[in-house]
Amino acid sequence: MNPTRTIAEFVVNAHDLPAVAIDEAKRTLVNVLAVSISASEHPSAHRLTEWARAEGATARATVIGSDLRTSPRGAAEVNGFLAHFQDYDDTHFPTILHPSAPVWPAVLAAAEERGATGAAALAAFALGEEVACRLAMSVHPWHYDAGWHITGTTGGVGAAAGAGRLLGLDADAMVYALGFAGTQASGIREVFGTDAKPMHAAKAAANGYQSAAFAAAGLNSATDIIGGRRGFWAVLSPNGHNEEALTGALGEHWELQRNGLKPYANGVVSHPIQDAVIRLRNEHALTPDQVVKIQARVCPLVLELMNRPNPTTGLDAKFSFQHCAAAALVDGAGHDAQFSDARVLDPVIASVRSRVSATVNQAIPEHEVFVTITLTDGREVSTHVEHASGSPENPLSDATLDTKFRALVEPVIGASRAATLLDVARNLDGAPNVAELLRLAAR
Amino acid sequence: MNPTRTIAEFVVNAHDLPAVAIDEAKRTLVNVLAVSISASEHPSAHRLTEWARAEGATARATVIGSDLRTSPRGAAEVNGFLAHFQDYDDTHFPTILHPSAPVWPAVLAAAEERGATGAAALAAFALGEEVACRLAMSVHPWHYDAGWHITGTTGGVGAAAGAGRLLGLDADAMVYALGFAGTQASGIREVFGTDAKPMHAAKAAANGYQSAAFAAAGLNSATDIIGGRRGFWAVLSPNGHNEEALTGALGEHWELQRNGLKPYANGVVSHPIQDAVIRLRNEHALTPDQVVKIQARVCPLVLELMNRPNPTTGLDAKFSFQHCAAAALVDGAGHDAQFSDARVLDPVIASVRSRVSATVNQAIPEHEVFVTITLTDGREVSTHVEHASGSPENPLSDATLDTKFRALVEPVIGASRAATLLDVARNLDGAPNVAELLRLAAR
Repeated sequence: MNPTRTIAEFVVNAHDLPAVAIDEAKRTLVNVLAVSISASEHPSAHRLTEWARAEGATARATVIGSDLRTSPRGAAEVNGFLAHFQDYDDTHFPTILHPSAPVWPAVLAAAEERGATGAAALAAFALGEEVACRLAMSVHPWHYDAGWHITGTTGGVGAAAGAGRLLGLDADAMVYALGFAGTQASGIREVFGTDAKPMHAAKAAANGYQSAAFAAAGLNSATDIIGGRRGFWAVLSPNGHNEEALTGALGEHWELQRNGLKPYANGVVSHPIQDAVIRLRNEHALTPDQVVKIQARVCPLVLELMNRPNPTTGLDAKFSFQHCAAAALVDGAGHDAQFSDARVLDPVIASVRSRVSATVNQAIPEHEVFVTITLTDGREVSTHVEHASGSPENPLSDATLDTKFRALVEPVIGASRAATLLDVARNLDGAPNVAELLRLAAR
Repeated sequence: MNPTRTIAEFVVNAHDLPAVAIDEAKRTLVNVLAVSISASEHPSAHRLTEWARAEGATARATVIGSDLRTSPRGAAEVNGFLAHFQDYDDTHFPTILHPSAPVWPAVLAAAEERGATGAAALAAFALGEEVACRLAMSVHPWHYDAGWHITGTTGGVGAAAGAGRLLGLDADAMVYALGFAGTQASGIREVFGTDAKPMHAAKAAANGYQSAAFAAAGLNSATDIIGGRRGFWAVLSPNGHNEEALTGALGEHWELQRNGLKPYANGVVSHPIQDAVIRLRNEHALTPDQVVKIQARVCPLVLELMNRPNPTTGLDAKFSFQHCAAAALVDGAGHDAQFSDARVLDPVIASVRSRVSATVNQAIPEHEVFVTITLTDGREVSTHVEHASGSPENPLSDATLDTKFRALVEPVIGASRAATLLDVARNLDGAPNVAELLRLAAR
């Protein structure tokens, strides 16, 4: 039994998933619908959707936030882009994988195509997410450190697992589905800050769905894409891998429990800073003109991933810890509205931004920060965030998630329809299929 | 000027390509049409074509060997699969890149969409091929040795360059097209011998076309996908790269001149063995029952890539030097007919196959071999092939290429139509567009 086959048999044979897995699936669904519907208003989303419209595929699957219906592969592609576009989706904290953006669109496309029940869709997502998170764990940190965008690479394998479960693949075909997805694993960090980053999730979702469909059509691939001599581990993580992290305690330990939902619409490693700045702002009623400097002691990833002192676009600013801190101080928030191009150019935010700095401390993990703000009257105010909001140890409450959903969705589809959609998503395990959910999520 | 931009400006601004480039484009077109039309009869090709038919995209582009018309991306996908399916396409000898399978389908899709002239299509192909070959040279041998299928990775970047040229991208947009294609670079050698190997060419073609279309639609990507800190060189070839091989003497040195057309429908590294065995067979009128053993002294890649003493399927046998040598001895050929499942199970071929062996010599390059056949009467007959047929130093003649074309195409579309198609392909530089070519190549 090779590791790919172990995973395939787990996904094919799993039943009676624990409540924690189904709850995770429902919460991530609410979140992914929120960020996708919000993202559908952006010009880049329009460009991609219009490209998919020109493809003109058979109207079998729903594009979120759009009147377009297209092929399952095409819908998975656009929906994957939307889900990751705002960098406001979820994060598997140990690996910085964003599992929902690749996996949910593939699962929804397969569920819509096959008329799967809501419960089947939720279970398929949970299994696909688990595969993506475990594969990510098995190559972390070597793979990400080498420059791979782990959401693009492992996400597609999870998407194939989830879609393949709904397409009714047996274990042999599931091995091939993972084989097609694994050999298409791609996405490098050079494109961060551009439209090509959410495209990684788009292609992972589309390739994952398509890989399952290819296996269902009788096409074959490798028998051990993960552990083979020239397989995923050997080629995409030559500096190390951990088989136990992939296959240990399957069905007992659920890696998906370490996935968290973002409270801020930007790169996750600056979230502790934003928590800290917002806390100090609210506790001390700070205004921008009071602030001399904002100093943070941070984990090394903050400077590695998000050191952009002078962002020029909204997308760029999502990977600027300086902008994130400045917007938190000025607006007290980090929704997508804080990352408009106009907000990036705002003179007040730009002024605060120039006063933000960070020093790295190797001992600080990515969910923690120490922030000190120096004020014009000479005072220093400080705080320590041990676990950022949205991290596994400090999860978003259902109420906060609902607030995020409404904040993002109501401006696009109105309060009444948003409330209905939220209700349908929260009760998807009782739904006969995903049709009503997707009808409400479309335009 | 970074290396990606240097390449982009070359592709956008090149004009008056030398005759050697246009001739190469025409010869590879004849070859790619031949192998694609032949491959279109295989069950795996039917499965993929039917999958694309179910996608049901707008009928804007031609699928070779089929009555299906679909979207440009969809056509590029199926045509890329067909072009590489038989492992009978072309080979850039220094890198074992197969440039036509990813680049031609992307170029044909873009040419058909835009109504480009035949001359424009040929030039776009030559430029896309040159980009793929140069990018391959810049990461060879580190990249392939690490387990990457270089056709999938660098082929997509070449496909984006060729398609982007026909879509009229300016240099900025071309940089982004290369950026989308480069971050989708994928394909690992674990899947060799399965349907997923030609799928690498399929996805490289489709992703390459789509990357150009995305850039044309105004989506953006990285500004230096090749040389950036987390770019193609850093992530997909961390053990080394050669910038000069990518950008040196652009427009003067043409790397595409080292591309060769295959005389045999299998992995290229065993071609010298087949040349040698066929030569000895014909010179000495050898029959299978005379042969005690066939011994070859070979370059290391033969054992690394094609050591499969007991293949069980035709696709598997294409990566078995033992089968290739046995079929060469028994049939005196290496067309696709020698790689049917039935031929793999043939007892005479199986018997000869069991008598084939090879020893590696580090000093022997991949185009060379020494073969000795021991006969039942005690004699030994030997020969030395210095440059395999189809290699740059021993290219297929136009007449041999035409023979290959007719052998592959006539059984599928008949002699008359095959002759017309060959004539149209050979005269494409005078055609107002590619419509007639593609009409004849379809069903």
